[in-house]
Amino acid sequence: MKAGAECYLCLMSQVLRTARVLGLDEGLSQRMAREACAFLAETDFERTPPEISEDLYRLLAELSGNEDPYSEIKKDNIQKALKLYPELKQAVEASADPLRAALEISLAGNVIDFGANAEDDWLSDRRFLSLGSLALDDYVQLVEDLNRATRIVFLGDNAGETVFDRLFIEKIGKKVRYAVREKPIINDATAEEARLSGLPEVAEVISSGCRAPGTVINQCSADFLKILRESELIIAKGQGNFECLEQIPGPFYFLLKAKCEVVSRHLGVEKGSLVLTRSRNFQARLAFNI
Amino acid sequence: MKAGAECYLCLMSQVLRTARVLGLDEGLSQRMAREACAFLAETDFERTPPEISEDLYRLLAELSGNEDPYSEIKKDNIQKALKLYPELKQAVEASADPLRAALEISLAGNVIDFGANAEDDWLSDRRFLSLGSLALDDYVQLVEDLNRATRIVFLGDNAGETVFDRLFIEKIGKKVRYAVREKPIINDATAEEARLSGLPEVAEVISSGCRAPGTVINQCSADFLKILRESELIIAKGQGNFECLEQIPGPFYFLLKAKCEVVSRHLGVEKGSLVLTRSRNFQARLAFNI
Repeated sequence: MKAGAECYLCLMSQVLRTARVLGLDEGLSQRMAREACAFLAETDFERTPPEISEDLYRLLAELSGNEDPYSEIKKDNIQKALKLYPELKQAVEASADPLRAALEISLAGNVIDFGANAEDDWLSDRRFLSLGSLALDDYVQLVEDLNRATRIVFLGDNAGETVFDRLFIEKIGKKVRYAVREKPIINDATAEEARLSGLPEVAEVISSGCRAPGTVINQCSADFLKILRESELIIAKGQGNFECLEQIPGPFYFLLKAKCEVVSRHLGVEKGSLVLTRSRNFQARLAFNI
Repeated sequence: MKAGAECYLCLMSQVLRTARVLGLDEGLSQRMAREACAFLAETDFERTPPEISEDLYRLLAELSGNEDPYSEIKKDNIQKALKLYPELKQAVEASADPLRAALEISLAGNVIDFGANAEDDWLSDRRFLSLGSLALDDYVQLVEDLNRATRIVFLGDNAGETVFDRLFIEKIGKKVRYAVREKPIINDATAEEARLSGLPEVAEVISSGCRAPGTVINQCSADFLKILRESELIIAKGQGNFECLEQIPGPFYFLLKAKCEVVSRHLGVEKGSLVLTRSRNFQARLAFNI
């Protein structure tokens, strides 16, 4: 999915948020904003938002000398999520359909995001756990596909929701590979955040080799691409993964909160909607030639 | 008041909003956003926000071929405000302090703004009329200064609130000159919008000679500067006028809703606060050498 006009605004909003997280003074914040404008005026907008975002955050890292500005925020969100974990696990077990309950909790966790339309204060009340109905809901089909599949990959998104993904993976009850970003970007989960979330206890944690806030196929490592090609089911979490993968034929299910106009429009749902959708380009195996 | 880092974001937000108002397609919207980024990367941020904004909107006008994209929105807001006018006038007359009541209605009208943090739908309910208390309130002093003054200028802001300003000027009950922008910019009032609002019935409508969304002293016409220099009291409405004039010694009162972080911080109030404040640089006559 290509970037849209609104992405200019969203990316600038991320620049200002990052300056705030870094505690930059007014002069440095302005310099960062100015350099970001110069970048946005020149960069290729025929790419997906995560590809543009990756370049932008690299620029911000160079300007600030900080490769991982969201480090503390990531840890904090994982701690908060871990505190909820026992009671959520109980709720899942007590549910009439534990797999569905766990999937919904994983989806609810997708509110944690310091990229698009961040909800900094996601835990302030627990409304985020009351999903209501999904705007797109291919659950029945997912269950069928899950029953058939033996090679399953879960593409993770943000630190914190990783804990909720863990619950979902426990309920899948099969071997799952959980893919994370190769290096820190925004508050996306890397191997370190997966570890802190307890994911290695329920899944094989692997890196995509990519450091964009999504899965940019032609940046992935050869090892990871091999795994993807052999997969029978790929659950891709969050907007970034959707933006990168929705046009690629493969066994994809997308699980996300549609946080911005560009993605909502593309999905044909209202902004803010929760979505579980089988890829429009679904096919049994990933087809992608680099 | 100089622009701040947040202004980059606010200005980009205005670019996207203007593209939407103009009904531009995706390609043109992206082009506008890109050119705006190029402009923001280069322009002098040691200026006040209205000065930067003026240049930016000139660029948008050139790109779109439309000098007055908010023309219909301005008319619509005036119509809506005129419908409220009779009942508001009654409420003012019935009030224990009609001048104060009229001032509060004029201040409430400052929610109408398609620049900073626009409230497109200000009339959807009438909460905007329930001000609560002002975060800064120099009313007692204003009344004293109004009683003494014979040469009074009111610097207008947006089309629509012009109708509410009319009510306030009626209650001042003295000769008032009402200054508008020289040419259309955003939804700011020009002579045309002042006319549609009925202001010529209660005030002498004059142009500042300036087309920034504020009063940039060194862009004002010689005639207007002469009037300002002779004024004993200048009521400056809205953020744009505050940003341009707060540092200039003169008989200024600022009447505004603090809509953004930069202005709120400068005033020392919470964002969203309503303010009537005598200038920190108040003096009996305008002192400004160009």
